[in-house]
Amino acid sequence: MDLPTLSDIQSAHKRISPFIHRTPVLTSQQLNSIFKCELFFKCENFQKVGAFKFRGATNAVLSIDGERKKNGVVTHSSGNHAAALALAARMNGIKAFIVMPETAPEVKKKAVAGYGALITYCKPTLQAREESCSEIMEKEGATLIHPYDNFNVICGQGTAALELLEDFSGLDTIIAPVGGGGLMSGTSTCAKGIDGKITIIGAEPLNANDAWKSFKSGQLTPSANPSTIADGLLTSLSELTFAIIRKNVDDIYTVTEESIIASMMLIWERMKIIIEPSSATVLAVIRENPGFFEGRRVGLILSGGNVDLRKLPFSSFS
Amino acid sequence: MDLPTLSDIQSAHKRISPFIHRTPVLTSQQLNSIFKCELFFKCENFQKVGAFKFRGATNAVLSIDGERKKNGVVTHSSGNHAAALALAARMNGIKAFIVMPETAPEVKKKAVAGYGALITYCKPTLQAREESCSEIMEKEGATLIHPYDNFNVICGQGTAALELLEDFSGLDTIIAPVGGGGLMSGTSTCAKGIDGKITIIGAEPLNANDAWKSFKSGQLTPSANPSTIADGLLTSLSELTFAIIRKNVDDIYTVTEESIIASMMLIWERMKIIIEPSSATVLAVIRENPGFFEGRRVGLILSGGNVDLRKLPFSSFS
Repeated sequence: MDLPTLSDIQSAHKRISPFIHRTPVLTSQQLNSIFKCELFFKCENFQKVGAFKFRGATNAVLSIDGERKKNGVVTHSSGNHAAALALAARMNGIKAFIVMPETAPEVKKKAVAGYGALITYCKPTLQAREESCSEIMEKEGATLIHPYDNFNVICGQGTAALELLEDFSGLDTIIAPVGGGGLMSGTSTCAKGIDGKITIIGAEPLNANDAWKSFKSGQLTPSANPSTIADGLLTSLSELTFAIIRKNVDDIYTVTEESIIASMMLIWERMKIIIEPSSATVLAVIRENPGFFEGRRVGLILSGGNVDLRKLPFSSFS
Repeated sequence: MDLPTLSDIQSAHKRISPFIHRTPVLTSQQLNSIFKCELFFKCENFQKVGAFKFRGATNAVLSIDGERKKNGVVTHSSGNHAAALALAARMNGIKAFIVMPETAPEVKKKAVAGYGALITYCKPTLQAREESCSEIMEKEGATLIHPYDNFNVICGQGTAALELLEDFSGLDTIIAPVGGGGLMSGTSTCAKGIDGKITIIGAEPLNANDAWKSFKSGQLTPSANPSTIADGLLTSLSELTFAIIRKNVDDIYTVTEESIIASMMLIWERMKIIIEPSSATVLAVIRENPGFFEGRRVGLILSGGNVDLRKLPFSSFS
């Protein structure tokens, strides 16, 4: 299996830089004081389409051969990758076919439609998604851009950590969320490539802990019916992302639903920025393991900010 | 009556700069495209204590004579000014006595207590607030720092516009919210002092439209029982702020509650930042008067970001 290197991520960054936002890295004296460590938040919630996924999708679209481009791209996604691929395709003047589960959040359906993609709804199972994708690939000749099981997508996702480490050197830990493992793979490849001493930690919901199980057992173990408020982290690792994570990641921590919501609320209240539950897992790791991070300089990848404001988890939360 | 000048605001800026955040000015391609104008958002929601009020409070505290400082400061406030004065006092090592209406949002009570202020709760009437304040002034010898009817507070509030116009020249309009008129007074004095051709517009809830009534009639006309989701704008102009606004402000626009909520939601969803309803009034002015601002370069003061996340207005909003 061909694993990406730091150099692949640096090339991806050159390729996508004209198209992406260089997102800010924010700090918060209040949160530093609460958790007794220095936190550096890489704000991909401010990325185009509101998520880091635009990096990987753009790199993948720009990497397709000229002739194949005209048939467009196709993918299945619970949301952010769909919007990301739709916009990346539109910015390059090619068609995007998006297969979405009918249960996807309304705000994400609207976003994808708004970027001019051709949407096919399917049942919310991996099998239904993959079948719809295959049909479109066959009929249209479109190139499949998988949300995470894709070399170029992974290289694109790694560029967030590249910018973070350009802006702030001397970080001793980086924490990123783990869903399908695309962001974790890119982040860990990049950070270990720059400095092998940086500790790389994955943050995963306890209720969708396939990466934790796979990492601890050494056997790829997909989730069965995961259920978490962190709807961007429902997917399971692929052979490719598992191989990269085994090689580069130091540990994976699981976090509870209560801790995800509490951490999301802390970031909303103290930093006045909107992040989605998947992003909150990284602070939840620190919240659940306070002694471990004391005195450290920790980079945190905030993966996105797409939430349905009509369905927030705070109203009955104390 | 002694009215502040641009030079007073410039002096205030020098005085408070070591203590305040220089907040960013954000733009949004999506919102520019929706409203067909160029919008420049001065993000005082990222200011210390989550509101522009920290500027005025800090300038007022730093302007007290050495001897009087040791008796502390006192004020009454529905929230943001209270937190601002509490923190400004603490940073200068003096006591802060805060009179708050018992109906103030929980998040604001917590913030004030967190900054170590001595809180006295009172009935939610102007009379009850003022009586409690007078008692504390008499007993403790504390200096009253009124939320807006105060020369030094007004000069401090004007520094947000000063930074906005340093960062982006060539704005042809600036819109700020109007409650008691402190921010509007400082903003308009600063902007007209820099460039008399900039149009200065106040944004006021229709349900708390004392400034609009006063401005249009030429007679100071306080609100009777105002009720609006923009809880920072319930207060009425004072003689001082009315005099400044009559001199410097070009017009005041009122906005509906529905429009305030829709504008708040637009900023949350598109910009991924948290603003309070009072801040949303400035975009609501543009939303309700679209033709008027087409093609203009408009500066908007986002006054703060303190909301109670357990009581958001979005759940039943379509």
